[in-house]
Amino acid sequence: MPRYRLLVEYDGRPYAGFQAQAALPSVQGAIEAAVKAFSGQDVRIAAAGRTDTGVHATGQVVHVDLEKDWPAQTVFNALNAHLTREAVSILEAQVAEDGWHARFSANERRYLYRILNRRAPPALDKGKVWHMKKDLDPEAMHAAAQHLVGLHDFTTFRDMHCQAKSPVKTLDVARVRRVGEEIHLDFEARSFLHRQVRSMTGTLVEVGAGRWTPDDVKAALEAKDRRECGPVAPADGLYLVGVGYGPLAS
Amino acid sequence: MPRYRLLVEYDGRPYAGFQAQAALPSVQGAIEAAVKAFSGQDVRIAAAGRTDTGVHATGQVVHVDLEKDWPAQTVFNALNAHLTREAVSILEAQVAEDGWHARFSANERRYLYRILNRRAPPALDKGKVWHMKKDLDPEAMHAAAQHLVGLHDFTTFRDMHCQAKSPVKTLDVARVRRVGEEIHLDFEARSFLHRQVRSMTGTLVEVGAGRWTPDDVKAALEAKDRRECGPVAPADGLYLVGVGYGPLAS
Repeated sequence: MPRYRLLVEYDGRPYAGFQAQAALPSVQGAIEAAVKAFSGQDVRIAAAGRTDTGVHATGQVVHVDLEKDWPAQTVFNALNAHLTREAVSILEAQVAEDGWHARFSANERRYLYRILNRRAPPALDKGKVWHMKKDLDPEAMHAAAQHLVGLHDFTTFRDMHCQAKSPVKTLDVARVRRVGEEIHLDFEARSFLHRQVRSMTGTLVEVGAGRWTPDDVKAALEAKDRRECGPVAPADGLYLVGVGYGPLAS
Repeated sequence: MPRYRLLVEYDGRPYAGFQAQAALPSVQGAIEAAVKAFSGQDVRIAAAGRTDTGVHATGQVVHVDLEKDWPAQTVFNALNAHLTREAVSILEAQVAEDGWHARFSANERRYLYRILNRRAPPALDKGKVWHMKKDLDPEAMHAAAQHLVGLHDFTTFRDMHCQAKSPVKTLDVARVRRVGEEIHLDFEARSFLHRQVRSMTGTLVEVGAGRWTPDDVKAALEAKDRRECGPVAPADGLYLVGVGYGPLAS
């Protein structure tokens, strides 16, 4: 039974998140329906990141086990053909190596958060950016973000409903920069807690707006207290942009 | 009665074009409804470019005459507040100079055409790019486009229903370049014929795909015959990105 590795792009707006839920549209449900239409199989797919309602992806990684040994190109074409009415696209399909697992073999997740920082609201990118009218200072945000890099207890930046066993994670990269009318925040880690990126982003925006200092972010982190987190950023601007499977992966 | 100059962004997908048509949603109708909601006035607005169904804008210019002398900032905020359910955003509002007209004073229109040139269909940019699976050669397209620059009879690249008095226009700029996974075509002219940009783009794609040579484009132009045009590109990838009001404008 060959396993296929799929690189997936989606617009999160029409979906109640990645994960399949009864009676609600999901990215997982859309892909599984396409697999069923193409192969006749009822499958459960696995994904590197279970993104929330409204969160987008340009580089989600998924696997699916098929009974028949189809050429990867056939899987690619057939799934895309069955996804034309969905906001989901298969960017690449390949046969996976033995033992490889989309979720458990992943040792890096990369997220991008896009803030549209101008007075006018978005028309073309509605639902795809967080709109902030007030001029943000990306350098102050970047400085504050460096306090979050490294091995920390991220309790402050973790959703109440997070099911991870431990709040201790290593954040490898946190970068804030201006890109035209937007502020981009890049985050990389082996894994993230539930709503961690949106919690960190919302807090860093407080710094960008001049309401918090970078040291306030350090103090909030060290408090290990969810109540010390800034306002959580909305799903709109969040993108899962890539997943790494390095030599350390199982 | 002060005239206000508005810079406008919109997603063309929900609209049957810029121009108001009975019973059909239009960008003009959306803006006029916002003006009515804010000022109580029934107005007719004028625009630099009357874009077709599904065509987008990042730099449309519009004017509206108001009875009351509002600060431009108030007009900006009020219109955007009344446009939140629309895919239209006012980027800037300012009081216009005496005698200035959004359409008749314009002496340059700039369009961008975006082609997504990869095997996978778009998920995030559905309806906002033209998807071409076949690898295009932007250098051959650019060379062919240079035959279109200058003063020409553009009958070949003009829609049957075009109402312009003359098919003779001057194309100032035609540029084709690769930008990541996309091919961007930039066109600039004082004015364009109906569907001229989409007709030129579709024809240049024939060159990019290797089916036509740049000289075939020259021959098609010189034929002054609509039947010599390549397939017309869809609205999806077309953006009105800017309007110029130079010193030559009336």
